[in-house]
Amino acid sequence: MSGVMATRTVAIAGADAYIIDAFVKPAAEKNICHFIIFGCEDIDVSDITGCQYTKCETIDETVSGAVQAVQAKKAQIIMKGNIHTSMLLSAILKRENNLRDKKVLSQVSVINFKDGSRQWVMSDPGLNIAPDVATKIEISKNAIDVAKNIGITCPKVALLSAVETVSPKMQSSVDAKAVADYFAENPYDAIVEGPISMDIATDAHSAVAKKYPGEIQGDADVLIVPNIESGNLMYKTITHFIPSVISGAIIGAKVPVVLTSRSDSLDSKLASLELAIQNVVD
Amino acid sequence: MSGVMATRTVAIAGADAYIIDAFVKPAAEKNICHFIIFGCEDIDVSDITGCQYTKCETIDETVSGAVQAVQAKKAQIIMKGNIHTSMLLSAILKRENNLRDKKVLSQVSVINFKDGSRQWVMSDPGLNIAPDVATKIEISKNAIDVAKNIGITCPKVALLSAVETVSPKMQSSVDAKAVADYFAENPYDAIVEGPISMDIATDAHSAVAKKYPGEIQGDADVLIVPNIESGNLMYKTITHFIPSVISGAIIGAKVPVVLTSRSDSLDSKLASLELAIQNVVD
Repeated sequence: MSGVMATRTVAIAGADAYIIDAFVKPAAEKNICHFIIFGCEDIDVSDITGCQYTKCETIDETVSGAVQAVQAKKAQIIMKGNIHTSMLLSAILKRENNLRDKKVLSQVSVINFKDGSRQWVMSDPGLNIAPDVATKIEISKNAIDVAKNIGITCPKVALLSAVETVSPKMQSSVDAKAVADYFAENPYDAIVEGPISMDIATDAHSAVAKKYPGEIQGDADVLIVPNIESGNLMYKTITHFIPSVISGAIIGAKVPVVLTSRSDSLDSKLASLELAIQNVVD
Repeated sequence: MSGVMATRTVAIAGADAYIIDAFVKPAAEKNICHFIIFGCEDIDVSDITGCQYTKCETIDETVSGAVQAVQAKKAQIIMKGNIHTSMLLSAILKRENNLRDKKVLSQVSVINFKDGSRQWVMSDPGLNIAPDVATKIEISKNAIDVAKNIGITCPKVALLSAVETVSPKMQSSVDAKAVADYFAENPYDAIVEGPISMDIATDAHSAVAKKYPGEIQGDADVLIVPNIESGNLMYKTITHFIPSVISGAIIGAKVPVVLTSRSDSLDSKLASLELAIQNVVD
């Protein structure tokens, strides 16, 4: 994004000195966005361009400060600092805060292999525990929206299960079929297929070997996982054992929500910020 | 295993020319084991040492031939040829065939990163769909048995979930605690912890960062997955995107069952055979 003028502002709830140093300063240097920051520590941000800091008495105040910045349209993205995720999500879900959209909130991750061979939009590895069919439809829509916002015109969406045929004994395969049927009847400018196995979705050789008849032949853009365990185990396997840059945001509220963790690399943190910026709905 | 005299015999149900060329010949050349093979094709095995072939009229006969070879103790391992997995497993589960043990049948995979950095015993990525606590206990025992049989004295066993604390909203975390409690009361010469997340189980840095208090600090030997979807998605991510040799067997019957697939590399096929040989119960 270097060379692009920052036009978006991120409100951070509960920032501390670590977050300023490890995240805000590098983002400000790259001129990715402006910041309105709420924290409980004494922090001087006068040397950081496009950055405004408010010291609060309590963590609750940092959250309400960030929420108000978004409500007042001074910020278009909200980000979690050193506070519990549930605090921020509760504030977003609270009706009187008017930040809820009609949609389901879901975590959407974008995985870029460092060798450039793969880019996957994946959802939901961390928020919805055991989504039902209606929730999986909204999770899929959120992920498709993200795919389009990062430039994939008509994404190929794989509704993953452990099999590629419906088995009444495996609920995830039944659900995947129901979600696929929904999108067949309600087109969303995407190719949505399921149930489909991870190897057919991501490995062309497997798709051919298994004679998979669909349009996805190892080239899925969007991976919808059947439950939080499968998403989480796969996500962490990729994070820790495949060289990749992984970004993520919570999608479905009126503003994207950024939840980076301290163990994320700087590349991944900045990629999450850029992902949120790309997914601002005006 | 080169230099070791073959002492075990594998009965193959439903072998075809492909299996003979791609699997039996390389195994025979390495003198890993002997074979008693049942198939429907005309196949000449006279030039393969330690190999006996019986032509059958039907696929059913190839299965019953292999089962009888095991029953008569002429073979100590049974292997699936070009037949449906369910055919072979049905025969093994049929009471009158007397091949069932008291235990649950489960798929156990051994994953060796090619760079030598990791070895994981993982279960169950393919057989038990949504195991309950009692089944997860038996799945864990089968996997621990395999870990010991491949030389891990007191394996560290991670009962995986998406979290490392029990959450009543996430059944897999509740189950993991119940399984861990069972092993605390009924020691099995293993360190069994759960619920535990994949990053704590396999990444020392994450274990420290998250201040995980257990004995597993990124160094789990055995990974027990909460359901078939999570096992399958993780397994296929590893298979296709992390350079590794993956072997596997069905454990819990009186003999190990080998189910290699054609898309497996020769290395993985032979590793599966060796894994089965290491897990013969005399």
